Amino acid sequence: MKNIETLRWNEDHLEMIDQRILPENFEYISYYTAKSVADGIYSMVVRGAPAIGCAAAYGVALEALCLSKANLEDFLVGMEVAFKILLESRPTAINLFWAVDRMKNLMAETNEEPEAIALILLKEAHKILREDIEINKTMGSFGAEVLSNNSSVLTHCNAGALATAGHGTALGVVRSAVESGKSISVIADETRPFLQGARLTAWEMVQEKIPVTLISDNMSGHLMKTGKVDAVVVGTDRVAGNGDVANKIGTYMVAVLAKRHNIPFYVACPLSTIDLSISSGDEIPIEERSANEVTGFRDYQWASKGVSVRNPAFDVTPADLVTGLITEKGVIFSPNAKKISKLFEG
Amino acid sequence: MKNIETLRWNEDHLEMIDQRILPENFEYISYYTAKSVADGIYSMVVRGAPAIGCAAAYGVALEALCLSKANLEDFLVGMEVAFKILLESRPTAINLFWAVDRMKNLMAETNEEPEAIALILLKEAHKILREDIEINKTMGSFGAEVLSNNSSVLTHCNAGALATAGHGTALGVVRSAVESGKSISVIADETRPFLQGARLTAWEMVQEKIPVTLISDNMSGHLMKTGKVDAVVVGTDRVAGNGDVANKIGTYMVAVLAKRHNIPFYVACPLSTIDLSISSGDEIPIEERSANEVTGFRDYQWASKGVSVRNPAFDVTPADLVTGLITEKGVIFSPNAKKISKLFEG
Repeated sequence: MKNIETLRWNEDHLEMIDQRILPENFEYISYYTAKSVADGIYSMVVRGAPAIGCAAAYGVALEALCLSKANLEDFLVGMEVAFKILLESRPTAINLFWAVDRMKNLMAETNEEPEAIALILLKEAHKILREDIEINKTMGSFGAEVLSNNSSVLTHCNAGALATAGHGTALGVVRSAVESGKSISVIADETRPFLQGARLTAWEMVQEKIPVTLISDNMSGHLMKTGKVDAVVVGTDRVAGNGDVANKIGTYMVAVLAKRHNIPFYVACPLSTIDLSISSGDEIPIEERSANEVTGFRDYQWASKGVSVRNPAFDVTPADLVTGLITEKGVIFSPNAKKISKLFEG
Repeated sequence: MKNIETLRWNEDHLEMIDQRILPENFEYISYYTAKSVADGIYSMVVRGAPAIGCAAAYGVALEALCLSKANLEDFLVGMEVAFKILLESRPTAINLFWAVDRMKNLMAETNEEPEAIALILLKEAHKILREDIEINKTMGSFGAEVLSNNSSVLTHCNAGALATAGHGTALGVVRSAVESGKSISVIADETRPFLQGARLTAWEMVQEKIPVTLISDNMSGHLMKTGKVDAVVVGTDRVAGNGDVANKIGTYMVAVLAKRHNIPFYVACPLSTIDLSISSGDEIPIEERSANEVTGFRDYQWASKGVSVRNPAFDVTPADLVTGLITEKGVIFSPNAKKISKLFEG
């Protein structure tokens, strides 16, 4: 099949696949402003840390284009508002902050008029998108080496092409392993409440004819106990300086069960997802989303009326449960602060 | 509120709440034959090990009433068919086998004509139902003692009044603790794929104004890690002679996480749920249900087409993860074969 283009530039605007309505409907939504991109991120039209980073970069570029006829002073004021709106769209994925900072720093270095700045920012957004795909392919080739032939790989949520500019992080590892000739089957946690596993991971794997088995999130322990899982590979929204991993809610339970059953637990993690500014996962802000995601799915609400709800969107897996971080600089086994800081040297 | 009557006898037939359509709709379905009761068990109109046991006992009685005008030979042949149909309705809950065996043994001891046998069997079904409620209340009072005041109790699936003839096993413990004056709040795992937690446990607790917070099954680990869970209490479908516990899929993951966080993990377990004929949980048959339960809920199907599915309805928690079995003879801490066999002495 044709590669999935989660985000794409079309002449003068950004288009993003509406991931809320997959797999029943495959539609692009058009974006012309930072505000609309921020809404798209918050409402999960686009999700997945690397894809959010790319979307935010385009959000910055779009706003610059909108303001490109303004004088420099108005332009800069407008851009500050745009940065703020984008940074507030979702709190956990570090790639959002990384991408906005990269765009902001580039803008600060540029001694041009708004029109020229806008074009430079757009070029940078394109570059971030291209780099993301390249990094995923490099990570994929490193990750493919740690997966055995004929293995069954459990993944949680969707860290696929749809969570990135393309190829994917965790599913990028699976894709690269399959491309290298290995026979891999995937077990997909459905990943309540947003069902990224049932809707997105399953859909991506079916498109590429990679065997995929869907389970409820509460089944992975039983499958591990009965010998049906050979490895776990997940993505991440932010890795702390010590190797603690924030990822979609439920990842922590999978990691604890994997440890109990001596199943390797890998995290596919581009360097842009590592946050050296925090020393442990305890400092990662965990987004709490709305109750109606848990009391049902989309407009179908099945829970008893009158119930309270908790809806943390992420959890933190301590580094000691992580067999290896798969990065574009290789696989970092038994990650810790020293090994991680070394990744950023030279 | 009025006590929930999961099953009730109405003149000449059994009525059971249709638990598939709760909480939106509260309706009783009428049953006149063993075959229809078996269908009700399989299709999960009624679920929960003790309730299944009661339903099966009434299924036997109903069939006897249907056949009560036949000659003894035809009656006995018909009853054998009824036993078989009922025993094949679901494989995991031992109470089904326990109840059918009890009815069968009583029938074998009775030297009467069909009409008299039928009345004896109906009386026995009524007795099983009354005993179940009494046992739950006794278990509840023992269990209430192990819960601290102001504690937050996580439960999985529904082991409430709806899973029994009344009061409930795990939720019976919560009810008894609340009745004894303790302040208890419940965290309910939604329990995919059938959503017994979201629909049934939440509904029971809301009815009784016991504070209840609904979460997805993949959130309990995060809540335990962040100090939000003081104890876990679940029901069970079958306990092996060594204390291994079969219960709704996902229980095993909750137990492993509870152990990691030193949170007590209790199993509310009437003696009728203990199967001394098997020495370990490995011997408990695990029902595999249909794919469309996992690919969606009811008629709403959201998963990608073409995906394979696993749908084990239960898993087994090893005895060493169980803090205590709450039975009608008291709480058995750190259960093992010796302590369990002692329960059945004298």
